[in-house]
Amino acid sequence: METIFVMLNQDTIVALATPSGAGAIAIIRISGNKAIEIANEVFRSVRNKNLTKQKTHTIHLGHIVDGTKTLDQSLVSIFKNPNSYTGEDVVEISCHGSTFIQQQIIQLLLRQGCRMAQPGEFTLRSFLNGKMDLSQAEAVADLINSDNEASHQIAMQQMRGGFSNEIAKLREELLNFASLIELELDFSEEDVEFADRTQFKELLNRIEFVLKRLIDSFAVGNVIKNGIPVAIVGEPNVGKSTLLNALLNEERAIVSDIAGTTRDTIEDELVIGGIGFRFIDTAGIRDTKDIVENIGIQKTFEKIEQAQVVLMLVEGQKSKVESLILEVEKIKNKYPQKPLVVIINKADLLSENELNSLKAQLSTFDFRLLTISAKKNIGVEELKNTLLSLVNTGALRNNETIVTNTRHYDSLLKALEEIQKVRFGLESGLSADLMAIDIRQALYYFGEITGQVSNDELLGNIFANFCIGK
Amino acid sequence: METIFVMLNQDTIVALATPSGAGAIAIIRISGNKAIEIANEVFRSVRNKNLTKQKTHTIHLGHIVDGTKTLDQSLVSIFKNPNSYTGEDVVEISCHGSTFIQQQIIQLLLRQGCRMAQPGEFTLRSFLNGKMDLSQAEAVADLINSDNEASHQIAMQQMRGGFSNEIAKLREELLNFASLIELELDFSEEDVEFADRTQFKELLNRIEFVLKRLIDSFAVGNVIKNGIPVAIVGEPNVGKSTLLNALLNEERAIVSDIAGTTRDTIEDELVIGGIGFRFIDTAGIRDTKDIVENIGIQKTFEKIEQAQVVLMLVEGQKSKVESLILEVEKIKNKYPQKPLVVIINKADLLSENELNSLKAQLSTFDFRLLTISAKKNIGVEELKNTLLSLVNTGALRNNETIVTNTRHYDSLLKALEEIQKVRFGLESGLSADLMAIDIRQALYYFGEITGQVSNDELLGNIFANFCIGK
Repeated sequence: METIFVMLNQDTIVALATPSGAGAIAIIRISGNKAIEIANEVFRSVRNKNLTKQKTHTIHLGHIVDGTKTLDQSLVSIFKNPNSYTGEDVVEISCHGSTFIQQQIIQLLLRQGCRMAQPGEFTLRSFLNGKMDLSQAEAVADLINSDNEASHQIAMQQMRGGFSNEIAKLREELLNFASLIELELDFSEEDVEFADRTQFKELLNRIEFVLKRLIDSFAVGNVIKNGIPVAIVGEPNVGKSTLLNALLNEERAIVSDIAGTTRDTIEDELVIGGIGFRFIDTAGIRDTKDIVENIGIQKTFEKIEQAQVVLMLVEGQKSKVESLILEVEKIKNKYPQKPLVVIINKADLLSENELNSLKAQLSTFDFRLLTISAKKNIGVEELKNTLLSLVNTGALRNNETIVTNTRHYDSLLKALEEIQKVRFGLESGLSADLMAIDIRQALYYFGEITGQVSNDELLGNIFANFCIGK
Repeated sequence: METIFVMLNQDTIVALATPSGAGAIAIIRISGNKAIEIANEVFRSVRNKNLTKQKTHTIHLGHIVDGTKTLDQSLVSIFKNPNSYTGEDVVEISCHGSTFIQQQIIQLLLRQGCRMAQPGEFTLRSFLNGKMDLSQAEAVADLINSDNEASHQIAMQQMRGGFSNEIAKLREELLNFASLIELELDFSEEDVEFADRTQFKELLNRIEFVLKRLIDSFAVGNVIKNGIPVAIVGEPNVGKSTLLNALLNEERAIVSDIAGTTRDTIEDELVIGGIGFRFIDTAGIRDTKDIVENIGIQKTFEKIEQAQVVLMLVEGQKSKVESLILEVEKIKNKYPQKPLVVIINKADLLSENELNSLKAQLSTFDFRLLTISAKKNIGVEELKNTLLSLVNTGALRNNETIVTNTRHYDSLLKALEEIQKVRFGLESGLSADLMAIDIRQALYYFGEITGQVSNDELLGNIFANFCIGK
């Protein structure tokens, strides 16, 4: 860690910080010892200001010049070490958002002695300079990638230290006990116990409880981060895409009010009530002798397996509704716990008697029955509410810490294993020296999460997933 | 004009100023009387600062909050009227570049009383508040769209007032004379001449000269703005795409050094030595009896007509080279003035004798002969130099004002027409009152360019072409 720290801080890095492409303005970010000096070399202030003599957090108007050639009129913001994102001197050049100008200015800065930043290098420097811990740094990337209320909220909580604080507190308490246990080793001849075994056991229980809760939250966290998988079962042409469009259009209406912020259509991915849903189309599970179709049915079951909710869509025709009963039976027998929503499209084609008879026949199964008209947008709101009610987001609503990062999950699992070893050792009267090893190992895994323990490879892996400029 | 001015300045506008999509950071720009007040409502400074009490050109760290919910950690920059882009109070929120966060913050600001900005509305306000004239405002859009050295340089020059100054100076001189002529009208009974007719004639000549130069520059300007059209004549599979790739790759190598700034491939558009070239593929002009092919040849000629340079590509085979002579003859007979470059690909297939004989046979025609190996990248550099030498960019090199905007071109043409009418009137002893009308009309067209004369429709047309956020 020492090496990477020294190496990185010797040079001054530059990158485009705003999305690539043309826009009104673009931000080019420079960080390092020479950031202000280099910026000053290429900047002609309209008021003849010398950037190296300006206060932190001030903005200056002028031109970016390459020799006698003016590249752009720009605003330059100055942030002085340690009061900046990276903790180093930082300069942000706000230029006109032409890709040509962006390139010209970056090339000029490279010639002046800057180096192109690696992905995530600004945030890496922030971590190395103690501005944030590792899990907070990781939350920065999650925050940028968040595309719905829930994933945004989790990333925000983590970035503000919610997760780190919980881990750090446990780690500190454990560290206290570890010190006492290790102290005992120095006095091993005298058979003293500095660490109160009852308190220690209580602490281990508490740690185990928290670790288990965090580990359990990963299932929710993972689903929220990647979208809740929903399998749609139904024959082709039953109205699946009309249904998705109906769900989509309502959300679109909100988005398109804000011109310029319309997102690209993400096929079959929807945000409902702030939660991301991922709709998985399947071929249906009609009974058949056809081998090819049977393979299709196998695939449908595989997709249902992965899904957290199953939507079954049928048309409101008597013949279709009858085969529906068999299908509900099949799914419920195979996946009794999986929430199932049966949606009857064009329900007005059925008489009230037929509908009631259907309900009676299916009354032994646990599922929700909705009647909608996707084209007329009837029942869409009810479907949304049903989907939201079926999703386990209790932890989210209660503002609990949720683990979304596989790396954290792995470290938590390993830490739990070590804590259980320690507890087992304690219960079976294991000697303090052996117990100390397990405690140290548990502490190591805690430290991995917040970055108190880290190495070049780990950091490399984490920051490689960042975008350049962050 | 008065109406739009008053209407616009009553409200506070907001828009995303950086390109849409995810990036490290995004900038949301607010402008108007209530910009700072509204920003202060949704901002919690880490140092408990009140934004309304901060100095202009300062940056503040804090969180954007929606009630109890924290949307993001952000930097907020304050620019106070009149020292801002629009001349109004301006706030720029630098938030994390997630599209979700951008939307959430913009929605929050809309609820707090901001209005979504129209395309170009920030620049329109800048114009209406006298921060820049109309041709400078138009140059802002050109600057953002500039994708090569030449178009960037022209836009930059125009934005810095080069063009406006030239027009404004002529307008002022003409206005002086107009006043004197109109003064004569008041004394029309007395037959006095306040305006020295010799000086006036000299001024009209000067104006005419400048107008003609500017009008002529439009051809160059247009070509530079849109790329110089180059027709490539050659049979399919003769290596046209290999040639384009060879030209492209060298430029690419420069671009790809700067990770994160790589542009999307623009098919057949290349920047060579800072000048944009637009390559137009044609089917060739082989002699044929086939009607369908003859239509193809007609199209080839149409494309040659549009092009400023013709590249003819042939393979270095004896049989091909012979038909080449006929083709060169045809093109040169039809377009004797059009620069023609004949490129022999795989020239090593020809013996030196064959090559010399070819040169001898073609010696009566004015064209350049290049031998290249596109695959081996031999001769590519020479081709680039040849292309650059053939392009008329003298005006660009001499830093002269170049007109690129069709609106300006139209106004210049109309102004020239009026000036010629005035001169004709002067020469034929037209009465002062009639001459005054033509002078006023010429002044009107000058004013249209810089925006001293404008109306809502004109402004609407100009700013509708801007991106939102500028």
